[in-house]
Amino acid sequence: MAKHDVIRIIGIDPGLRRTGWGLVECAGNSLRFLGSGTIRSNDKADLASRLCQLHDGLEAILHRHRPDEAAVEQTFVNKDAAATLKLGQARGIAMLVPARAGLAVAEYAPNAVKKAVIGVGHGDKKQIHMMVKVLMPKAEFDSDDAADALAIAICHSHHRASPVVQARLAHA
Amino acid sequence: MAKHDVIRIIGIDPGLRRTGWGLVECAGNSLRFLGSGTIRSNDKADLASRLCQLHDGLEAILHRHRPDEAAVEQTFVNKDAAATLKLGQARGIAMLVPARAGLAVAEYAPNAVKKAVIGVGHGDKKQIHMMVKVLMPKAEFDSDDAADALAIAICHSHHRASPVVQARLAHA
Repeated sequence: MAKHDVIRIIGIDPGLRRTGWGLVECAGNSLRFLGSGTIRSNDKADLASRLCQLHDGLEAILHRHRPDEAAVEQTFVNKDAAATLKLGQARGIAMLVPARAGLAVAEYAPNAVKKAVIGVGHGDKKQIHMMVKVLMPKAEFDSDDAADALAIAICHSHHRASPVVQARLAHA
Repeated sequence: MAKHDVIRIIGIDPGLRRTGWGLVECAGNSLRFLGSGTIRSNDKADLASRLCQLHDGLEAILHRHRPDEAAVEQTFVNKDAAATLKLGQARGIAMLVPARAGLAVAEYAPNAVKKAVIGVGHGDKKQIHMMVKVLMPKAEFDSDDAADALAIAICHSHHRASPVVQARLAHA
């Protein structure tokens, strides 16, 4: 990253009920908060309609903010198969929308996100949210999911300069 | 269904590696095979690209065949969370594409599909495929997934006349 290109990264924390997004600008090692929010689906609607709501919400965000790269958390729910399937459906949409918009979509495991933001691979939500505020004092978020999405974007800003990620992005 | 409207139903059996589809025309109790096939994603590509491949493949099928209603299997994998998450991602796309095209998307549990096709809620793949051929002698399929997709479409043709399904379709 000798040039210190200015890059806009969207982090996405997918969920059927709530999908968080967070937008970060990075230039070399400097980070700037650009925006965040939560896309909600109507839990009284049928599944296909809810997936459309997530799709349309995310598409509108990409259209408005024109990020250059996307990063999505590699979440696992160990509750039960039904919960994992629900999350998978939302996650499919969260990866599809930026990919169809021509963005490279990186994936990060939760402990990679924690390591990037709080320095170690474990920690609770509070610590993550606090460190998001320390790294970007102007950061605002209206939900845990939006805060997590910002943490995912920060994680990608740390990793994107690595040769492995660059090679993957080049092939995307 | 006093009028015996002619309705085109697409059944979809989602999977990240292979998504089967089967198209059936139904008029009252009569069924006609219109087509079937398998959309494959490149397992060497990254996840986001594979989801795009499923999306684009399914969108092309809908565009070509213009079905009126869609039905997707409510599959569960009990292998592990990673497999369930993968299936969920493919299933999200399988429900999104017809919903965005304005189709009502019904969901059926595997035992409902078996009951509709072979008369009981249990049975193996061979029995299902044989009964698909008995119910629609002209049916052809190039994979198990395509045969399953035809079974899902047949299941929907049996259930769509029921008042409960009609109410759900009316609200879709």
